Amino acid sequence: MSSLSEAPGRTVVAAVIGLGSMGLGMARSMKRAGLDVTGYDIAPTAVDRFIADGGRGAATPANAAKDADIVVSVVVNSAQTEAVLFGAGGVTETMRPGAVFVSSATMDPAVARDLSQRVEALGFHYLDAPVSGGAAKAESGELTIMASGSPRAFDTARPALHAMAGKIYELGDAAGTGAAFKMINQLLAGVHIAAACEAITFAAKQGLDLDKVYEVITASAGNSWMFENRIPHVLAGNYAPLSTIEIFVKDLGIVQDMARSERYPVPLVAAALQMYLAASGAGMGRDDDSSLARLYAQLSGTQLPGLSGKPQS
Amino acid sequence: MSSLSEAPGRTVVAAVIGLGSMGLGMARSMKRAGLDVTGYDIAPTAVDRFIADGGRGAATPANAAKDADIVVSVVVNSAQTEAVLFGAGGVTETMRPGAVFVSSATMDPAVARDLSQRVEALGFHYLDAPVSGGAAKAESGELTIMASGSPRAFDTARPALHAMAGKIYELGDAAGTGAAFKMINQLLAGVHIAAACEAITFAAKQGLDLDKVYEVITASAGNSWMFENRIPHVLAGNYAPLSTIEIFVKDLGIVQDMARSERYPVPLVAAALQMYLAASGAGMGRDDDSSLARLYAQLSGTQLPGLSGKPQS
Repeated sequence: MSSLSEAPGRTVVAAVIGLGSMGLGMARSMKRAGLDVTGYDIAPTAVDRFIADGGRGAATPANAAKDADIVVSVVVNSAQTEAVLFGAGGVTETMRPGAVFVSSATMDPAVARDLSQRVEALGFHYLDAPVSGGAAKAESGELTIMASGSPRAFDTARPALHAMAGKIYELGDAAGTGAAFKMINQLLAGVHIAAACEAITFAAKQGLDLDKVYEVITASAGNSWMFENRIPHVLAGNYAPLSTIEIFVKDLGIVQDMARSERYPVPLVAAALQMYLAASGAGMGRDDDSSLARLYAQLSGTQLPGLSGKPQS
Repeated sequence: MSSLSEAPGRTVVAAVIGLGSMGLGMARSMKRAGLDVTGYDIAPTAVDRFIADGGRGAATPANAAKDADIVVSVVVNSAQTEAVLFGAGGVTETMRPGAVFVSSATMDPAVARDLSQRVEALGFHYLDAPVSGGAAKAESGELTIMASGSPRAFDTARPALHAMAGKIYELGDAAGTGAAFKMINQLLAGVHIAAACEAITFAAKQGLDLDKVYEVITASAGNSWMFENRIPHVLAGNYAPLSTIEIFVKDLGIVQDMARSERYPVPLVAAALQMYLAASGAGMGRDDDSSLARLYAQLSGTQLPGLSGKPQS
């Protein structure tokens, strides 16, 4: 098998499975970089959106991945990833021998290791490559990718990685390490959003000037990336989903399951997860994750900007 | 009463009560700015240290505050602040009429309001002025001060504030507001340290390269000011106290008490406080607050840099 980097003259054939806000941006970035990209999504309207952009669409993952050198999977979780690979109409039916499967869904590292072994047994490469950065960075090709896999997996995937990412962390040759780094990031991100919402609503409860709180905290030792990024949604009273409550129900759930199986206590994660569950149970699951502030407001009779006594939903 | 800013020709007389790592730096900064500073501490060795620097020492708060225009109190909590003001040998016995008491201890806003009323009833001004920034910034006169109080309190205190602070937030004319802002900061700071320690030790449990984890997280959405500042202590295995576990036992305790009395749920604070209590109970109360990582290691059989199986203490 020759890796793509050894054959610079040929156009790289790629598929993107999952054309949500992240996958669509990643597909567009790859197309802009000169790759021959076909997209698939379980929702036909998402495929149509990519076609309207000048992209090529397919009716199944297998059709999208036909003769592909690189298949980038940007689905929600490990179950969907497994279906994309091995389900009826899955990509392993049609990928070019020696092609690489780039797996971006956040998942338990043990599951990533298992998928990697099964993919490699079929003569393909597997790159464990979760991403961070959000839809805007996906669109501009400036994502952060936390990747691990064999040198051949990296080499084969490199045209797609360079098209999608501003920063690529190469974290070793074993699948699972990329996933583990992503879970550490999600642990912190999920707890920090909950702490930010607990704090800003507590400030509101005390009648403090919330714009001033934002100014002081972002210049102080209490700051976090998430406080700085999410609290403006609360100050604007705008809970339109950029990243949803359900994402953290899922990701902190994975962290809690991993930690339980490793006999590792995670009291902060456990407390935060209960709040995401409560927000979801109260009807805010598909709203922005900063909706935890609305939950705290509801639980304490506190007024927040843009909200009446009863939270919107 | 004429405020000091109206009498620029006269040397400002000031006292600093509490010459720990913060108070000593603040006293030195005020002295460097040309104020006539007398220091007091309950520990005579702390006073001697200030005298060895060329400062003037006193045997009681009242002696230190004799004819002072500005008294800066940098003690541990509200009980000590009350004793400094109204106990035997307290500063209100000797402060110049119209002088200002600058209160820097972290405390419940309701207590700050009460102390302010009692001080003002005696003909003095009160500035609610918690600080943030640590010993190095105290020494260089670059603290952040979150202050509230009457315009006269601000005017009278200004020579000391300018000497101590790089940034002064003026948060309104009511005592208690400065204290409330500080508690919001401490809520976040305390939760973020616990989350950072939960995450880095979980990464160690999974055998990840911790230096790489630090590099990736500080460039990702999971970052916090505290993760960036405290995790290097864990990576170096150095738990010498810069700020102690007991500080957050105290400060998250205040947050929890405030929240309980306001019927406001703080599940993240509650979970974090239990970990600080456990660290204190396990003998790490006077060690650096990053010792929570050692606690997580102990509770999960995880190796951390510089630690044998049994945690040092």
